[in-house]
Amino acid sequence: MHNKNIRVHSDQVMAATYAALERRGVKVADIADIVYKMQNSYNEGLTMEHCIKSVERVLNKREVQHAVLVGIELDELAEKKLLSEPLQSIIEADEGLFGVDETIALGSVFTYGSIAVTTFGHLDKQKIGIIEKLDTKAGHGIHTFLDDLVGSIAACAASRIAHRMRDLEEEGETFADIPPIVLGPQPKPKTEI
Amino acid sequence: MHNKNIRVHSDQVMAATYAALERRGVKVADIADIVYKMQNSYNEGLTMEHCIKSVERVLNKREVQHAVLVGIELDELAEKKLLSEPLQSIIEADEGLFGVDETIALGSVFTYGSIAVTTFGHLDKQKIGIIEKLDTKAGHGIHTFLDDLVGSIAACAASRIAHRMRDLEEEGETFADIPPIVLGPQPKPKTEI
Amino acid sequence: MHNKNIRVHSDQVMAATYAALERRGVKVADIADIVYKMQNSYNEGLTMEHCIKSVERVLNKREVQHAVLVGIELDELAEKKLLSEPLQSIIEADEGLFGVDETIALGSVFTYGSIAVTTFGHLDKQKIGIIEKLDTKAGHGIHTFLDDLVGSIAACAASRIAHRMRDLEEEGETFADIPPIVLGPQPKPKTEI
Amino acid sequence: MHNKNIRVHSDQVMAATYAALERRGVKVADIADIVYKMQNSYNEGLTMEHCIKSVERVLNKREVQHAVLVGIELDELAEKKLLSEPLQSIIEADEGLFGVDETIALGSVFTYGSIAVTTFGHLDKQKIGIIEKLDTKAGHGIHTFLDDLVGSIAACAASRIAHRMRDLEEEGETFADIPPIVLGPQPKPKTEI
Repeated sequence: MHNKNIRVHSDQVMAATYAALERRGVKVADIADIVYKMQNSYNEGLTMEHCIKSVERVLNKREVQHAVLVGIELDELAEKKLLSEPLQSIIEADEGLFGVDETIALGSVFTYGSIAVTTFGHLDKQKIGIIEKLDTKAGHGIHTFLDDLVGSIAACAASRIAHRMRDLEEEGETFADIPPIVLGPQPKPKTEI
Repeated sequence: MHNKNIRVHSDQVMAATYAALERRGVKVADIADIVYKMQNSYNEGLTMEHCIKSVERVLNKREVQHAVLVGIELDELAEKKLLSEPLQSIIEADEGLFGVDETIALGSVFTYGSIAVTTFGHLDKQKIGIIEKLDTKAGHGIHTFLDDLVGSIAACAASRIAHRMRDLEEEGETFADIPPIVLGPQPKPKTEI
Repeated sequence: MHNKNIRVHSDQVMAATYAALERRGVKVADIADIVYKMQNSYNEGLTMEHCIKSVERVLNKREVQHAVLVGIELDELAEKKLLSEPLQSIIEADEGLFGVDETIALGSVFTYGSIAVTTFGHLDKQKIGIIEKLDTKAGHGIHTFLDDLVGSIAACAASRIAHRMRDLEEEGETFADIPPIVLGPQPKPKTEI
Repeated sequence: MHNKNIRVHSDQVMAATYAALERRGVKVADIADIVYKMQNSYNEGLTMEHCIKSVERVLNKREVQHAVLVGIELDELAEKKLLSEPLQSIIEADEGLFGVDETIALGSVFTYGSIAVTTFGHLDKQKIGIIEKLDTKAGHGIHTFLDDLVGSIAACAASRIAHRMRDLEEEGETFADIPPIVLGPQPKPKTEI
């Protein structure tokens, strides 16, 4: 059932993505912090501001926005006990073998290549920063999907930085040579998937 | 938040999967029909019964069951207008660039190898049998996730048959030599992912 | 064993990618032709030149270049009978269940999202244009990996066009409003993965 | 170019897979050791013998065998300096951004679900056991593909054990209750992908 008439504008999808993350207590800086912790030692001249811009660029991507909206919706519906059984119990319990949370997060991760995939797997085991907090926030909310989404966004942003570092090295440069804004979202007419 | 106490038994997840498909008007035979149409010409001796058993085996898999439960839940919540905006509108419209429906379906498809992936892509464009019906059932329900799930299960079952045919050929046999039950779910203690 | 000293410059990798495709008889225009045939009816104002630029942009991506180099290398080694058995026979025969050819191609496809994945699957079954030629060139060369690589690049370029069309629609524009060069490779300092 | 006449028997592919691993210094017990280290603390009653059988079962899978044969072939060709440039240098240097090694390994990993994917990513960063040895064997051989293949096989075998543990728990059992052979390759007519 394709209905062009009720199409949602991409600006609205973007705004909803940022609003959802904020509502669930995740700031762009929290995700950038994970990226910085992972990439700092490998990338000379890298600053938190570079990481923030890289996260913003990842959040600019349609695939990522859709994943965030679906995942957070399911977490929130589970908190309100609005899911049918047995799905309600499975998501509440964040069962290790559930897998749909990782699958939705991996959808975005794949778009940043194999380095992003291995980085995502690493974050899934070594819960860093806000991911650790979300994972242990027992009793105060359901974050079955959110912790994987945050890991996914951080893995994508880290992968972008690793690729860019390679380009910089070829030019004999480091991150100290480029303003953070270059890593951020680009003007609309030039947005690419 | 891992809570072992409220763990759902796998029999319950299986029963819920079959119930959800039936509630949404999809029979195992409908999916097996797609498999038969795709594989019939390549596999000597193949019957509808082989295809039915292969579909049942795919539906026995945890990853597949979880994907079905999440996808149908989202379709049904969208029908009841219980999703928040803009997700409600995006899923209602079944937007071509949405992607989370394909991503969830692909999670299961990957577990059956690269042949399953290409078969899934083929079914996504050449909507066969029940998939066509679900896709065009305009106004009578939302099947944004279901059509991809059905394509996914059919692709997996077809991939199993292609692999088995190869084994049969090595033995100088065809599907005429093996009872359909061999392709179906195996006794519990021997179930494998 | 990481050795930074012998690092290959990305310009050299790019040049080798174009050279390999040309050596194997595949022109950018051949791939663009597949893209045009698939996307023409959905995208108002789309020209061959837009498709060519989109293919060039895909070929600019590191993941794609590496996949092309590895796949063509294996095809050429197989032609020269330089692979060990049984791999030599498996690749010569282009066995349907081999799968590594699709896997390598899928690595790039994933980076363009789920639409690219389903498009790749479609091309794998409905061999269009140069893919058909490569597949049936019996006796005159081994293209076990190349046909999947071409399908992969075409699927990626087509996915980029579908995403861009969506952006254009939001602005009330069509491809007639944008010069093809906008879809092509961007200046080095702004290249992103 | 499909030629049924020269089809390789699956027994030959299996034998070549085991021979290739042995030739490169990797024993089934080395891979099982990684699995045991990762899964021991979560799975009551688990023994090395269970892990060995699980690895053998993974090695029984067509997708895995093909990945091993292609990856080791490329490592060995690189050692013999038989690859063309710049691929020869890229593989010799085991460049971090190469990615085709991870992509080929991921092809098998996907067939064991999302847990296998995150486990593979973890192993890619926390090099355990034989993986560490292969990665640091500087100057004594090229293992660009092999270390990822070993990580892939270990991740798959570990994922099988995690899924089986879940089944055992439902029956009130542990690994102490099942003989290792149950986890191993099953008789030919019942092999499934």
